[in-house]
Order: sequence, then structure tokens, then C-alpha cells
Amino acid sequence: MNDDFTPLSQACVNIEDRGFQFADGVYEVIACFGGTFIDLDEHLERLWRSGHAINLTPHLSMEELAELIHETYRRNPYRDAMLYVQFTRGVAPRSHLISKGMLPTLVITSRQLPSITDEKLHQGATAITLNDFRWQRCDIKSISLLASVMGKQEAARLHVDEAFWLDEDGHVLEGCSTNCFAVMDGELLTHPLGHRVLEGITRKMTIRLARKHGLSVCERPWKLDEQGLSEVFMTSTTNAAMPVCQIDGNMIGDGRPGNISLSVRQWLLNHFKELRS
Amino acid sequence: MNDDFTPLSQACVNIEDRGFQFADGVYEVIACFGGTFIDLDEHLERLWRSGHAINLTPHLSMEELAELIHETYRRNPYRDAMLYVQFTRGVAPRSHLISKGMLPTLVITSRQLPSITDEKLHQGATAITLNDFRWQRCDIKSISLLASVMGKQEAARLHVDEAFWLDEDGHVLEGCSTNCFAVMDGELLTHPLGHRVLEGITRKMTIRLARKHGLSVCERPWKLDEQGLSEVFMTSTTNAAMPVCQIDGNMIGDGRPGNISLSVRQWLLNHFKELRS
Repeated sequence: MNDDFTPLSQACVNIEDRGFQFADGVYEVIACFGGTFIDLDEHLERLWRSGHAINLTPHLSMEELAELIHETYRRNPYRDAMLYVQFTRGVAPRSHLISKGMLPTLVITSRQLPSITDEKLHQGATAITLNDFRWQRCDIKSISLLASVMGKQEAARLHVDEAFWLDEDGHVLEGCSTNCFAVMDGELLTHPLGHRVLEGITRKMTIRLARKHGLSVCERPWKLDEQGLSEVFMTSTTNAAMPVCQIDGNMIGDGRPGNISLSVRQWLLNHFKELRS
Repeated sequence: MNDDFTPLSQACVNIEDRGFQFADGVYEVIACFGGTFIDLDEHLERLWRSGHAINLTPHLSMEELAELIHETYRRNPYRDAMLYVQFTRGVAPRSHLISKGMLPTLVITSRQLPSITDEKLHQGATAITLNDFRWQRCDIKSISLLASVMGKQEAARLHVDEAFWLDEDGHVLEGCSTNCFAVMDGELLTHPLGHRVLEGITRKMTIRLARKHGLSVCERPWKLDEQGLSEVFMTSTTNAAMPVCQIDGNMIGDGRPGNISLSVRQWLLNHFKELRS
């Protein structure tokens, strides 16, 4: 917390921290494999972009934050870790209005990076779709996440893994904590960037690696009922790419993880390995 | 906090409280004049409704919470106070998914109720309009308030008091922390309830008192450029009713607080006084 290293159970913020009363903060989740951080610079740049969008300027430099993230990793026992980094506006008497000269609150935690079991990968993930009721600035990675929590809760209630948000015309925007891709006639599709999807770092890497391997990628709005749709997968920092085999109770393709989805996943994992060597 | 009374500066929550990382909580602000709470029951009922909408059930009864609110008031020095009450989902390792059996975090604070100076009332308030980019469940009084913070910040940047949200057709929905009324040909107008406005308790009382005083009230979408619009005012728990005399740089009516707005304000203040006697 800030410049202190504290056991998680003792790390506390004042109840008038604006992160606790106004969701007035931004965050990142960064994967680290055996000491190698995946795209740390890109995460930091996005954190600064998110902060800029809400007029929150971190009180330290990107280099200083990178060092604190490394130090947090080193002080924890997890070899493969996910580092959680959050800035909030800081503590002030409750008012929507932002006081002048506030000192942001910084929190970094390290946890074991979750891994997908072979069995789960073999089955593929399941999802539902929901009409998007989130705010219209999903490009900002803010802690104003209640809509996504509600989406995930509805998914859990229906015993599926993720909820995908649909725009007013039925296009798939993204998931509650993932970006979403389709394979259509052998081409990768994903919703274009804008205010309604997060500029996922794994999304970006997926597009780059797919093109490198000769796959065509098109960023355009797409629907689940389009002719030629054979696969769906979702991407995230913590899960790389994960095939989605059933949505709203309907099988995607033959209901098993598709070859292209599995290839994309492998390209990402290979890329992470290369970064380590 | 929870069942403990603590000085505000020492009242802390763990950084993995879901209120701090997911905006996973609901709240109320309640006014108290000299020991008399204004519509406490209605605030508690709305708090339970908001909680229900996000599947968060308080761990105590409405009666128990009312007693804690009274006790918080008694332990603080403010005669006219605003009591802030917030429930969050509680503390759990960070995941969008909600763990089973969580114990909510309860926070109650008491502060001096702000009062409007005669000078400010004489001048009237100023506002801007912004295209609504908030989520589509503004009927839930949640702490997912970042959009409203951004609205208030934009208002402050332009040296005005409030920002009113406009829907896609230009109708005035509500303000960042207020409901909004217009006077049109002598009739009160305010946006109907639904997912895009909060069911304000002062809004409801305003409608009731206006009708009692023989004023016609219509809950329908309305625009600022409609013929016959002569006054605008905004309502909230902390400010009763406040005339708005300039919006987006344009004078409303003759640019001074209108008679009906001032009457509504007086009816509300009289009603508060009656409750005390």
C-alpha cells in the first residue's frame, strides 16, 4: 500500500477513500511467469490512460511503479503470479466534487496466477449473453465494476463461466472480464475499439500473433447468429485465450473447442515462453 | 463500522473489501434536523431495494440499522446532520464472482448538514447538460458513481453547480446527485421513474407537497427547449429544492429563482419543521 509492504490481511484504507465510496479509481491485472512480466509496459501505459480519462494522475512515475510491482512480486511466494495494481483518488470528506491536491491511494497485491485444467480446456467454456447496461466508457479500466459483477453473478446463477454483453443491435461487445473473438469462415472477428470495449492487452497480442501466423483478422461488430460462425473464444490476461463452446444453451460449431481457438491459445502461451527465455 | 463506533480517521476497511475493488455496494444519505430524521423509513426501504437489486442482503434488520443510525447521530456533535449509510458485499479474495456466505460491511458516518446561504439561494444554481453515459440502472443507489463524479468534475471545471444528464433524445433525466424538475405553463414536470433515474425521496415528497398545494404535476420526459418552460429546480436530501437559473450558459426564465421553485422549497422546509414538532 502506497510505499509500505503489509500483509494483505492488515492492508486497510480509510472508509472515506474515494475508491470505497465513489468507485473513483483505475486498475490493472498483470501476469508474471517465473519472474517475467507479460507486457508490463503496456499495462502501465493503459493504467496512465485510464487515469488520464478520469483526471487522476499517479503520484509516481511509471518506472517507480514498475519497481514497486517487481518488489511486490519478489516479496511474495508465487512463481506464476497475477499482480493487481489499483490507484484511487485518495481520502477526502465525502463529496462528489474532488478536493484539490489529493494524494492518490496505491494498492498492489500478488496472488497465484490461476491456471485452466486440461479437463476444462477440453470441455471449453460456457457463456450467456446479456443486453449491455454498463456505462458507456468501458474503455476506461475503472473499479466502477458493479454491472460486470451483476453479469458474472447471472452467469454463475445459470452455471456458466462468462456473460457477453450485446449492444442494442445484438452485436457481441465483450465479456464481463474478457474480450471476445469469433471465427467466421476462417477469419478472426472482434468488436472494434471505442467507448464500449476495453482495449485488452491480450486482445491486441492475439490480433498480432494471428496475423503473424497468416490468419486474417477483422475488427468489426459481429453477431452470434451470423452465417459461417464456427468458433468463439475469449481472451484475458489471466487466461490467455479460452474456447467457448456453448452460449445461451446453444452449441458453437460442434460443441468442442475449435482448432483455431486452440491454436491462438498455443501461440499466446508460446509467446509467453519466448519472453521468459 | 459494523457494530463498532470508531473515530472517522481510524475507520478502515481491508483493501479487498468489494466496495473498494468492485463498487459492490449500496448507500443512502439521510438528513436529520435536531434529532428528527426525515423519512428514515423510506431511506431504509430504498436501501433494502437497492441491495435486493444486486442480491446483497443486509445482515441486520431495518429496525437494528435504524437504531445504529440513531446511535451514530447521538454520538456525534452535529445538531443538523447528514447520516451516510453504506453496505458493501464484504471482504473476499478479488474475483468478480461473489463468494458464498459473505458478511457485508456496514459503514455509518455523521456530518454537519450543509446549508445553502441566502446569497446562493438568491442567485440560484447553475448547471450544464451532458449526454448520459452512465449505466442503465440508475434506479439502484449504488456506489458505482464514477460517471457522476466525472459529471460533477466537468461542472466544476465550467464553474457551475451541477450537471444534468440528457437521454439520446435530449430529455433531462436527472443531475449527478439531484433529481430535476421543470415548471412548464405552471405545471411541474419531472422525468418518470425507470432504470435511468433514481427514485429520489425528496422528489417523491416534492410531488406530494406540490399536489397538496394545488399544483399539477406530470411525470413525463421533458426538454429544456420546450415552449412554456419558465423555471427549473433540483431536489436532493441535503438541499431540499434549489432553483436553477442558468443551464449551459442560457438563462432560465428571467435568470432569477422562480416563484414556484421557491414555494416548493418552502413547502419542503415547512414539512421538515412540522416533522420536528
